[in-house]
Amino acid sequence: MNKEQNILIIGAGLCGSLLALRLAQRGYKVAVYESRPDLRITDISAGRSINLALSDRGFKALRLAGVEEQAKAICIPMYGRLMHDKQGATFASNYSGREGEYINSISRGDLNGILLTEAEKHQNVSIYFNKKCVDIDIENTVATFEDYTSKQEFTVNADVIFGTDGAGSVLRKSYYLDRKFLFSYSQNYLSHGYKELEIPAAANGAHQISKDHLHIWPRGDYMLIALPNLDGSFTVTLFLSYDDGEYNFNNLTSKETITRFFEKEFPDALALIPNIKDEFFNNPTGALGTVKCSPWSYQNNTLLMGDAAHAIVPFYGQGMNASFEDVTVFDEILDGGLESWEAVFKAFEKLRKQDTDAIADLAIDNFHEMKDHVANPLFKQKRKIEMDLEKTFPSDYFSKYSMVTFNEEIGYEQAMKIGRAQDKALLNLIADEAVSTSLEMTKEELKIVLDKIQQETNEILNEDKIAGL
Amino acid sequence: MNKEQNILIIGAGLCGSLLALRLAQRGYKVAVYESRPDLRITDISAGRSINLALSDRGFKALRLAGVEEQAKAICIPMYGRLMHDKQGATFASNYSGREGEYINSISRGDLNGILLTEAEKHQNVSIYFNKKCVDIDIENTVATFEDYTSKQEFTVNADVIFGTDGAGSVLRKSYYLDRKFLFSYSQNYLSHGYKELEIPAAANGAHQISKDHLHIWPRGDYMLIALPNLDGSFTVTLFLSYDDGEYNFNNLTSKETITRFFEKEFPDALALIPNIKDEFFNNPTGALGTVKCSPWSYQNNTLLMGDAAHAIVPFYGQGMNASFEDVTVFDEILDGGLESWEAVFKAFEKLRKQDTDAIADLAIDNFHEMKDHVANPLFKQKRKIEMDLEKTFPSDYFSKYSMVTFNEEIGYEQAMKIGRAQDKALLNLIADEAVSTSLEMTKEELKIVLDKIQQETNEILNEDKIAGL
Repeated sequence: MNKEQNILIIGAGLCGSLLALRLAQRGYKVAVYESRPDLRITDISAGRSINLALSDRGFKALRLAGVEEQAKAICIPMYGRLMHDKQGATFASNYSGREGEYINSISRGDLNGILLTEAEKHQNVSIYFNKKCVDIDIENTVATFEDYTSKQEFTVNADVIFGTDGAGSVLRKSYYLDRKFLFSYSQNYLSHGYKELEIPAAANGAHQISKDHLHIWPRGDYMLIALPNLDGSFTVTLFLSYDDGEYNFNNLTSKETITRFFEKEFPDALALIPNIKDEFFNNPTGALGTVKCSPWSYQNNTLLMGDAAHAIVPFYGQGMNASFEDVTVFDEILDGGLESWEAVFKAFEKLRKQDTDAIADLAIDNFHEMKDHVANPLFKQKRKIEMDLEKTFPSDYFSKYSMVTFNEEIGYEQAMKIGRAQDKALLNLIADEAVSTSLEMTKEELKIVLDKIQQETNEILNEDKIAGL
Repeated sequence: MNKEQNILIIGAGLCGSLLALRLAQRGYKVAVYESRPDLRITDISAGRSINLALSDRGFKALRLAGVEEQAKAICIPMYGRLMHDKQGATFASNYSGREGEYINSISRGDLNGILLTEAEKHQNVSIYFNKKCVDIDIENTVATFEDYTSKQEFTVNADVIFGTDGAGSVLRKSYYLDRKFLFSYSQNYLSHGYKELEIPAAANGAHQISKDHLHIWPRGDYMLIALPNLDGSFTVTLFLSYDDGEYNFNNLTSKETITRFFEKEFPDALALIPNIKDEFFNNPTGALGTVKCSPWSYQNNTLLMGDAAHAIVPFYGQGMNASFEDVTVFDEILDGGLESWEAVFKAFEKLRKQDTDAIADLAIDNFHEMKDHVANPLFKQKRKIEMDLEKTFPSDYFSKYSMVTFNEEIGYEQAMKIGRAQDKALLNLIADEAVSTSLEMTKEELKIVLDKIQQETNEILNEDKIAGL
């Protein structure tokens, strides 16, 4: 496509800024408009997703854009989950049995800042902050913005518009309301919301609990999690129903009930969150929604990417990774030499949508896994066997979690399909006592388990195929 | 609830008119506003879903309202599918192996007329036509209408508002746009649209093809179907992709290509559709969408019912039946003596939503079954065995189709869950040659098949349960 065209990117979040950087590297002229202030100057994160999990799919995209090492420098590796029971006892469960496979806690703002700074180094990129998009004319590729300071509206006329404006995308909304084409669209909320709290650093600046883990306090109907920050603090998130159960966001309205709830359910965490009452009342309660839609593009004119096209719940730690992978996939399509933006956009969605649909579903599955299953004996036996298999047969066994998180060459949809069949096979083999669950298996014993899982997995996949005709 | 309250129903279609009738029978004061003219006076059906399939769930609701016999008088029984191949050869496949189980072709307009007339017999019901709802204030239960003739707007103040205003519901749209609560919402379109055509009656008024069947011309990627009308005609519907394949709605733009397409794919049907070219160009191309949402209600004020809450694609012949069943279920909840509309509305959704979600998914499955699987040898063997089992063991075997269509005491969700497992069991038993598929099995041989299916089905359900922890 003609590189003299004016490309407009709406939204300079993680996806928009990486896309701007990559398009600039490819020689395109890019203008980026962002509704919020420049987060390198102003702290705008209060109470909302301060840190995120970065893993292999995200790194692949960052590598493509030449910023992997800068990102790695601000990562805190998390090698596994550390579960906390009501008595404060803990047990660990690794994310992988292989060496060098772990996820990383990273500050959303710091990573976004790296991407903005790198993008701005390119002469063909301009980034404008405090310009809120209020309308997009997709027929004429004209976007209307409101300036935060002056409150004046102005329009920007582009040749192509990319909507990387997040879960509440204005571009997506115009697809829905303009009715120029049949627009399949879904927004689905979980029954639970979330609230962010903080475990501050110790007086000497150290982390007060293990910084090598993602901490989970699984309680069946709800949970608390904590991810480490570089400054020694942890960002803690409570996931709780709005309406249901003895304790919920609707009835946790007094300092007394909040304290009673935490004392009963999360006493060890409570002891580490000094400002819990203020934070509970001052921080917003966030909603947990999944957005899917199609088509993502309109003619040669516009394309949705990242959360704007496929917002997911945070429980697989894949939201940012999936958005970054969008950029990788889009870049591959650009390499293909298609002759129009329309062809590029359609090829992108065709290649990508099944995978973003899959990670959306997997993320909801993981909500139930994290708050509930991780404490289930059958699930624990399964994870123990999987870790032993990955350690003993590192080239032959990949858990669903490993396929999703550490195997960026497998698409999410394939990882979901094989991973779910494999989980079903292994759980049923354990339940039927058809495999050994002894704590110390020999390599030979493990090989028998591996063969049985593979045979059962193939059978499950084959039976599903026949049932689908 | 207080029967002096003013109940406002938006939409006098099939669901709204049955609801009005039933609420009137229970003593409520009901006003119904409908955007279209009175269909008993004006023909407004041109080219859109003239006839529908009525079956047991629908009859149960009509019985409750005392209008079952009136409906039966205008029904045409369809005992099975009649498949037409490209050479015009046909083969039949019954809907059930039991006596007296069949579906019925019925005119949407005639049935709607019966319900309107019955409702209007009640002094406590008023029905207003040509009043288009343009806005609903869900906080104050005030609806704004535009009069079709005068174009004047006016408002109606009610105590409770029921939105039975179909797939494009204004009430549902106000839930989405008002953002008073987290509203989960999806609209999903199939890649295919539909076009209605007509096989007229013979000169002597007779049906030109069997009126005892639902006719299908399955062609894998697309299909034609036909349902009989009382006047000897058939309503024919072409289901075809908008964009994909050699022939699609986007490229069937000349009389020549339409003729070539039908000559090649549906020669026997073409010979019976004299006005195909005019109808193809003059009738609209309809979209096929599924709508799911939650919550259906707002406080004590408003409730969505029927297509407004859960629009589905037509391939299971259950759209009208599901909407009528809404009225049955709602009536049962009213019998429960709950103390507020809010409690009634919440109980209704809690009992009902999983079932309407299920029929939506089943209806999409049946799209693929009708256009493709019905011509698949494995599928044909399966249906043959199922018919033999239902005939020989009428109290012990129920196909998925029978559970959905003829067993109104089983919810859709249960029918889907058991039916899918049973289909998977039977298809795999046939594929593995683990059951006899000989055309004439003895009762003893069939009993062996039945036992194997039941055992496999239970195993599948149990394995799924373990996999879900």
